[in-house]
Parts: sequence; structure tokens; C-alpha cells
Amino acid sequence: MSRGLVVALSGGVGGAKLALGLSRILPLDELLVVANTGDDFEHLGLTICPDIDTLTYVLAGLDNTEQGWGRRDETWSFMATIASVGGADWFRLGDRDLALHVERTRRLRAGETLTEITSDITHRLGVKSRILPMSDDPVRTRVLTDSGWIDFQDYFVRQQCRPVVRKLEFDGAPKARPQPDVIEALAGKVRAIVICPSNPFISIEPILAVPGMRAAIETCDAPVVAISPIVGGTAVKGPTAKMLQELGLTVSSASVAKRYGDLLDGYIVDHGDSQGIPGKVHVTPTLMKTVADKEVLARSTLAFADSLT
Amino acid sequence: MSRGLVVALSGGVGGAKLALGLSRILPLDELLVVANTGDDFEHLGLTICPDIDTLTYVLAGLDNTEQGWGRRDETWSFMATIASVGGADWFRLGDRDLALHVERTRRLRAGETLTEITSDITHRLGVKSRILPMSDDPVRTRVLTDSGWIDFQDYFVRQQCRPVVRKLEFDGAPKARPQPDVIEALAGKVRAIVICPSNPFISIEPILAVPGMRAAIETCDAPVVAISPIVGGTAVKGPTAKMLQELGLTVSSASVAKRYGDLLDGYIVDHGDSQGIPGKVHVTPTLMKTVADKEVLARSTLAFADSLT
Repeated sequence: MSRGLVVALSGGVGGAKLALGLSRILPLDELLVVANTGDDFEHLGLTICPDIDTLTYVLAGLDNTEQGWGRRDETWSFMATIASVGGADWFRLGDRDLALHVERTRRLRAGETLTEITSDITHRLGVKSRILPMSDDPVRTRVLTDSGWIDFQDYFVRQQCRPVVRKLEFDGAPKARPQPDVIEALAGKVRAIVICPSNPFISIEPILAVPGMRAAIETCDAPVVAISPIVGGTAVKGPTAKMLQELGLTVSSASVAKRYGDLLDGYIVDHGDSQGIPGKVHVTPTLMKTVADKEVLARSTLAFADSLT
Repeated sequence: MSRGLVVALSGGVGGAKLALGLSRILPLDELLVVANTGDDFEHLGLTICPDIDTLTYVLAGLDNTEQGWGRRDETWSFMATIASVGGADWFRLGDRDLALHVERTRRLRAGETLTEITSDITHRLGVKSRILPMSDDPVRTRVLTDSGWIDFQDYFVRQQCRPVVRKLEFDGAPKARPQPDVIEALAGKVRAIVICPSNPFISIEPILAVPGMRAAIETCDAPVVAISPIVGGTAVKGPTAKMLQELGLTVSSASVAKRYGDLLDGYIVDHGDSQGIPGKVHVTPTLMKTVADKEVLARSTLAFADSLT
């Protein structure tokens, strides 16, 4: 008998690792992955959804594990040509990856929702678990730097996280409707809500900023467990540590835990990162290098969550 | 001193061969190529302009001479992937070629004209001659078959010209405005108007169907010379011969000449194809295999045109 749904909130690379672990240890219909769409953007006339796509490729086994992002067996002819016809080439789009962006953009323009398109494409690519966007309405993360507000991908990719971050905002979030199946799922039988080891500021907080999402999580009886993205006092990947510093916070798992505050019922941190964390803490290795690591952390996360009920 | 502009009306592959010959023997500012846009279409959400692109690639020296269409050094990863995400794969789009379609589509959506975009892209790719679309307004060739009206590329590529053609129409043509620089050029000092050896029905007649275009050609003092696309009693390439038959015409250079009628001041045909052609005829080899062939035919065409004034 099902112990209920595991709802995982996830950004891209780090979150997708745990999502893969969860997908390998849970029955197909017991995992729902809610993807951040705050770093989606319009580029070259295409709608690009980096976190949905990373989750899709990772869960379909199509990810480029050497490169750490994008698709495997990728080629780069489009990228090698786009600048010659005057197009922007600062965001790297592989030829195979591009097929997904082109087809998704066509379908969005034809009036389909991001949910419908994502469900269809993930199914076609062989993903067994459900991946849902946090909202079908556009939410776009923006970053306040010393040169003013800029789009997230401008900050993240074009300027390679060099600008100092003063503030973040999620453009469109106040008017966005939460993805309805997510809200319905949270009102049903839920075993655990897992906040993946993603960047809190740019991967998880956009999800929580969608009106109704935080309330649905808070109302849900299931334990909410987060896995710290900080290991050994720094971020495994990306600008999490730099952002913590720039926003005036200590680079520590405790800072991330405090950021989530009352939302959490439990927190999972690596050895040596458990100082100063209030509430229930589970200490376990959180670095996921192999598929086995991902499965072990997924099992450990669910066991910890189960112990909280 | 300039003898005036040579205005060449062209479709894709066959026309581009002569356009290349003309571009190699004329000063840069003495050639204007007017491209058919009747076979443009919207595919995968992209606006694709096959004849403009063929002319661009050929005049930039970027064409795939072995394949006979598309770009050289092409790769096909996008095409190998598009069907897996549910996209249509019947029209082959190379990864490099795609860069042009994506960037053009982005700029069209941003409100730029096809003329502006074409001028900029051809310049960036190293084309020295001017290529102008027949119109900035969409004109779409449609084909009446025994199963009803279908879009041109559906007939041409997806169904590989298999349906019997009963009739052609140029959707949008009655309301299309001719490209203004073309009309202005035709009102200026023109040495010759050259109708390239393209398919009359699907490459040249769409150009002539744009209101004002035929009148501007007729009003222009310069001689109008067409090169027959029929060599040795059949078409060099494409469905010209099949279409002539299906439309109840003899497969001959004479049929094509009659189709153009009074518009022509002179007609150029290959040896053995000159039977039954009214008016001034110049007989010369018209098959263009090498660059030298293209230059020789271009020179011969201009000499013939000059002799008519």
C-alpha cells in the first residue's frame, strides 16, 4: 500500500541529482517533482526552461554527466553559426537541446500550457516520474546588482555570476497561479515534502513565491525536509556561497536552514555542517557523485522524513 | 561608366546558379537579385525562406555543392532529435542552417522587415550583391491537387511532388506590396531584366503576381530576357517538367516562353530546344555545372540582352 506521494521541490543540477535518487527508489506514481521556472527565459525567440530541462535529461538518462549540464551526445554547429548571422551566442544551446526549445516554443505559441508540453515531452523522452512546473504563468527571477536590475540568465550565464547580488525578485510571481496538480497533490496523501539541495535564493524561493504554494506546503500534514546545498562549508556548485555572503549571511548550512525557517520540520546536513541549526537535524553524507550516492541520500531523506511523523 | 543595373528574378537552386555567374562578372553595385518568397513557410514556429537562403548560401560560397541544397559543413543533430520530442521532421533543417531561421524569426517577431533582415544577414555572411525579397508581406504558394489545396512545401517536400498539380495560387499576393527598392530600381537606369532558369510556375510567377511588379517590369525600358529551365526536352531539376504535363502543356522551352508571353524581349534556350518559340531567341549551352559555366552563361545572357536595345 502506498505511503503517499513524495513531493520534491527542485532547481537544476543539484536538485536533479536527488530527484534521480528518489525516482530510483520510489514506485513511479509516488514521486512528483516540482520544478523551478524562475530561471526560464526568452532567448533568440525561444522559451528556455533550464531547470525543467535538466530534470528531464537527468531523469531520462540523457544528461551529459561529464559536462555536468545539457544533453549527452551533443553537437554545437548551431552555436558555431549563430553569431555569424548576428544572433546572441552567450547562452550555449546544443543542437539536440535546441530541438526541445524549438518544439516547446512552437507549442506555447499555439496555446498549450507548459504543464501539457512538459508532460508530453518528458513522457516521449522516457521519464517515468512526473515533473511539473511550479506555475504555467511566467515567473522570471531578476537580480539587483550595483548596475541595477538584470535578468537572471544575464547574471548567471552572460556575466557568470560576477556582479554582486543586492536583492532578488521574482517578476510575475505575485500574479502567477500555482500549478493546479501540485496544489491538489499537496492536499492529498503526502508522505514527505523534500526540498532538494538546490540554491535557496534562485531555485526554491521562486517556487515558494508563487501565491498559494507556501500555504499548501504549510497546510499539508506531511513533514517538510530540506537537504542543505552547503557541504564542507561551501556550495557544491554554483553561486550559493557567493550569494549568501553578498546578502550578508554566513556561508553555512545554518544560514540556509534559517532562510527556510518555520517551513521545515527537519534538515539534512553533511558531517561538520550541523552547527547552529535549530530543530530536527539529520547528519549524513550529502555529496552525490555516483548513482549509488543519490539512492543512498534519497533513502536516508525518506527515512528521516518518516521518522518525523 | 555603369551600363545600369541588372535585375535578376530568381527562385532557388537553378536561379541561384545564374545569379552566381552574374555576381562574378558584374560590378557589385550593378546586380540586384529579386528572390521569390512564395515558397516561404512557417515550420516548427520558424519562418523559413528557402529561395532567399539558397541565394544567400550560393552567393556567399557557403552552399553544399555536393548535396545541391543547404549549407556546407552541415550537421544534423537537431533533425535527429526533433521527432523524439514530438516535432515534425519531414523538412530537413541542418544545425547551421537553423541558426539563420531562428535569428530571422526572432527579428521578424520583433518587427523588422524581411528586407532589413535579409540585407543584414547576407552582408554578415559575405554576400556582396543585393538580394531583395519580392515583398515584405507574406505570399504563400498553394497547390490544388486531387485531394484539395495544400501548402507548397507540403507538396514539394513532404509529398515530394507526387500529387498531380491542377492549379496554383499565391495566397496573400493580391494584398502584398512589392519590395519598394525593387520598384525604385526598375524605374531607374536598368541594363537588363533577367528571368533566371527557375520553375516558371512556382519561382517566377509568384514574383510577377505581386501587384505592381509586372507593370514595373513592363514599363522599364530595359530588355527582359528569360533563360529556359528546360534543357534537352526536360527540366534540369525539380518538378518543372511534371508540372508542365499536369497543367496540360508540352514539356518544352516553347511552353515556358509562351507562359511568359509578351513580358519577354528575348529568350535563351539550349541547343535543340528552340522549336516553336516566337520572338528573339538566343541558342547557347544553358546547363551550368561549373562556376565557369555560370560565368559564360551570365556573359552570354547580358550580351544577348545588350543586343536587344
